[in-house]
Amino acid sequence: MKIAICGAGTVGQGVTQILHDNHALITARTGGTIEVTVVASRSVPTDQVFKGVAYTADIHSVCRRDDVDVVVELIGGTTDAKVLIEAALGAGKSVVTANKALIAEYGDALFALAAKHEVQLRYEAAVAGSIPIIKVIQESLAGNQIGWLAGIINGTANFILTEMAATGPTRTFDEVLQEAQTLGYAEADPTFDVEGIDAAHKLTILSAIAFDQPLRLDRVEIEGISSLDPVDFKFARELGFKIKHLGVARCQAGQLEMSVHPSFVPMTAILAQIDGVQNAVLVCGDAAGEILCAGAGAGAGPTGSAVVSDLIDLVEGAAPGGGLGARAAALKPLPVRPPAEVASSYYLRISVEDQPGVMSAVTSILARRTISLDKILQEDIAPNRSFIVLVTDPIQHGVIAEAINELQEMSSVIAPVQSIRVFR
Amino acid sequence: MKIAICGAGTVGQGVTQILHDNHALITARTGGTIEVTVVASRSVPTDQVFKGVAYTADIHSVCRRDDVDVVVELIGGTTDAKVLIEAALGAGKSVVTANKALIAEYGDALFALAAKHEVQLRYEAAVAGSIPIIKVIQESLAGNQIGWLAGIINGTANFILTEMAATGPTRTFDEVLQEAQTLGYAEADPTFDVEGIDAAHKLTILSAIAFDQPLRLDRVEIEGISSLDPVDFKFARELGFKIKHLGVARCQAGQLEMSVHPSFVPMTAILAQIDGVQNAVLVCGDAAGEILCAGAGAGAGPTGSAVVSDLIDLVEGAAPGGGLGARAAALKPLPVRPPAEVASSYYLRISVEDQPGVMSAVTSILARRTISLDKILQEDIAPNRSFIVLVTDPIQHGVIAEAINELQEMSSVIAPVQSIRVFR
Repeated sequence: MKIAICGAGTVGQGVTQILHDNHALITARTGGTIEVTVVASRSVPTDQVFKGVAYTADIHSVCRRDDVDVVVELIGGTTDAKVLIEAALGAGKSVVTANKALIAEYGDALFALAAKHEVQLRYEAAVAGSIPIIKVIQESLAGNQIGWLAGIINGTANFILTEMAATGPTRTFDEVLQEAQTLGYAEADPTFDVEGIDAAHKLTILSAIAFDQPLRLDRVEIEGISSLDPVDFKFARELGFKIKHLGVARCQAGQLEMSVHPSFVPMTAILAQIDGVQNAVLVCGDAAGEILCAGAGAGAGPTGSAVVSDLIDLVEGAAPGGGLGARAAALKPLPVRPPAEVASSYYLRISVEDQPGVMSAVTSILARRTISLDKILQEDIAPNRSFIVLVTDPIQHGVIAEAINELQEMSSVIAPVQSIRVFR
Repeated sequence: MKIAICGAGTVGQGVTQILHDNHALITARTGGTIEVTVVASRSVPTDQVFKGVAYTADIHSVCRRDDVDVVVELIGGTTDAKVLIEAALGAGKSVVTANKALIAEYGDALFALAAKHEVQLRYEAAVAGSIPIIKVIQESLAGNQIGWLAGIINGTANFILTEMAATGPTRTFDEVLQEAQTLGYAEADPTFDVEGIDAAHKLTILSAIAFDQPLRLDRVEIEGISSLDPVDFKFARELGFKIKHLGVARCQAGQLEMSVHPSFVPMTAILAQIDGVQNAVLVCGDAAGEILCAGAGAGAGPTGSAVVSDLIDLVEGAAPGGGLGARAAALKPLPVRPPAEVASSYYLRISVEDQPGVMSAVTSILARRTISLDKILQEDIAPNRSFIVLVTDPIQHGVIAEAINELQEMSSVIAPVQSIRVFR
C-alpha cells in the first residue's frame, strides 16, 4: 500500500518514524507493506526522518498520483484540509486523518463522499491520541447500547487543572497557562483548548459513533476552564474531589445530553486518577458495563500510533464501516434534552459578608426550590467576609440557575457565585 | 450469519441475551444479521432467554449442520471443547470462544487448523471479559513494538486482595476466600484462580500477541496469592502500596520475562486503583506509550459483549489475522530470561527474636550481596518478637533468593521470610 503523508509537523514526523522503525514488524503482522511515496508540506521538512523520502510542496498533487493509494491528512484546519480530503476521496483514495475539527464539522458529508467512491475515511487519531477509543466503541462495543460516556479529552486543559490542583503555593489559571505554553503543552492562542472547543469537537465525534447519529457540534453545551479560581481547587480537595474538564454524553429516556464542562470528580473515581496531559474515556455499555481507556492524548508517537493503526486496518483490508456508528442510512439524530432540564449535583461557592442570618437566607433560597444539600461548609476569607460552600444533590440545571440568580441578588453576596457540576 | 451457541451457562446466556436485545442495533451498525440457529448444551437450558431457540443435547452435531456458519464455544475445559472446535474448523466454520485454557494450551495447533481451512478462530472474550485487550494489542497497537504489559487479569484474586486490604478487622486469606465463594466470585475449587493458573493462561495469550510468538504457557513463572498474610496488607498500606496479583510480560534486551505473582504496587499507580472484581491491562508500546484498558473481567454481560464483538467482526467480514500477533509464519519464540536473572525490587518481611545485633546481622547479609534498601521499618509483634520489614532497590531474583536463604538460617529468624515483588 502506497501512501502520501500531507503535513510534516509533529504527527507527520511521528507517523513517518513509526513506519520506518517498525517496517519489518508491521509487515510480519499484516502480511502487507506500507510505503511512503511522498511527503507533502508547504515548507521543506527538515526532520531527519524525512531524509530520502520524496517531497512536494504541492499538497493537492498527491490526489492525482497513481502511486498513492491512501492520503494521510495531517495539515490540520478546516479549509485546505477539507479540499484535500474531498479531492482524495473523489479520486478513489482512502484517507486517514487526525483532524478532529474537520470531522466534527464536515464529517457527515465527507463520510458520504467516501461511501460514494467506495473508499474509507478513518480518524482514530482524531480523538484522544494514542487511545483507540474510536475502535473500542465502534467495534468492541458494537453489540452494546451505549448509555453514557465521559472523558478527559483535552490534554492541555488536564495539565492546567492538574497543576492548579497541586498542593503548595496556589497559582492562578493565567500563571499555569503560561507554564503550559512554555512547556509546549498549550498553543500561543490557547482558546481552542481552554475554552472547551477542541474537547467539544472530540465529544461530537464520540457521541455520533456511540449513539448512531450524525455529527452535532452545534448541540454540545460548551464551558471552558478559564473561570476557575485556585480557591475552588482547595475546596475540591477538602470535600474529596478533583476538578477535571470532562466531555460527557448521555442518552436517558430517549433524550441526549452532550456537554463539555469543568466538573468535580470524586477523588476515588478512576477519572480522578488521570492527571497531567493524559487522556481517558469511560464508556458504559448495557452489556459490557463501564470500560475505561487511558493513555497519552497527544504527541508524535501516540497520535502517530493511532494514524498507523488506521493504515494497518486499510492494508489488512478492513471492511469499510459506516464512518460513524451505524451504517449511514441508519444514523438518526436523537432528541436533545433541553439544557435547563439536564440534572446533576452542583458545587456552589458563595462569597458573603458576615451578617446574622446570611446562612439561613442562602439555605432557604435553595430549600424553596427543593434543592437538597449533600455538603456544606463556611470559611472565613477576611474579617467580616466568608465563603459559603455547598454541594447539592442532583437538580435540574434550570432550577439551580434560578437559585443562583436569586443568591446573586442578595445584598450580602459580594462576588459572582461560582458553580461547577459534580460528576455522578 | 447463522451461529450455534454451545454451552448454556452464564456466558451463553449473556451472548443470547445481547443478540436478542440488541438485534436491531447490531443490524443497523453492521448491515448484517446474526441469528442463533441452535443452542447446544448437555442439559436443557432453563433460562428464559433461550425460550424459542432450537435446542440440542448433541453438542458436536452443530459442526455437521449447513445452517450453522459460526460455532460459539462456551462449554469450557480442554477436552470436549477441543474436539468441538477442531470439528468446527475442520468443517469450514469459524469459531468464537471464551476459553482461555484451551487457547493457551492448544492455540497454536488450532490457529493452524483455522488457517488451513481458511476460517477464523477468535477469542476476545478469553482475556479480561469486557475489556477489548486482544483487539487493542492486535490492531490498535499493531504499529508498535511492545516493551511490556502488566495486568490484573483475574477478578477472583483481585476481589480477595481488595477485601484483605480493606481497613477494619483484618481477615485471613481463607476467610475472604470463603466470602468470595458465598458471593459467587470464587469456584468451589478455587485453585485455578487463587494459584495463578487462570492468570497464567491469560498472560500466555497476551504475551503471544504482544511479542509475536507462539503460546508458551510452560515458560510462565506462576505464583498465587494463598500465602499472603493480613499483616502484609497492613505493611503495604504503611509503606504506600497496595498488593495486587499481576501478570507481567516484558521484553528487554531481546529476552522475555513472563510471570504471574502478587506484587506491591505504588498506591499512586493507576493499577492500584483497580479494585474488586475489576480487571485492567496496561500495555507499553514504543510509539503509543502506556495505554490502560479497564473494565469488568467476567459476568454474563461483559464476557458476552466480547463474544458478540467477535461475531460482529465476522459478520462484517473482518480480515482473518494470523490468530496471534504476527502471521503464523512470522511467529518466533523469544529467548526467555532465566528466572534467577529477572530483576525487581522486593518487599521482605522477616520475623525475628529481639536480640542485640539482629538488625545489623540482617542488613549485613543484604549488604554483602550489594542489595540496597529503599525503605526499612521494625515493628513489635509480641514481647521479645518483631517484624523487620524492608523494601529493596531492584535486584536479580537469584541474588535475593540467596539472601533469603541465608536470612532463614539465622537462629533469630523464627518464621519463614515473606517476599513479594514490587511493581516498578
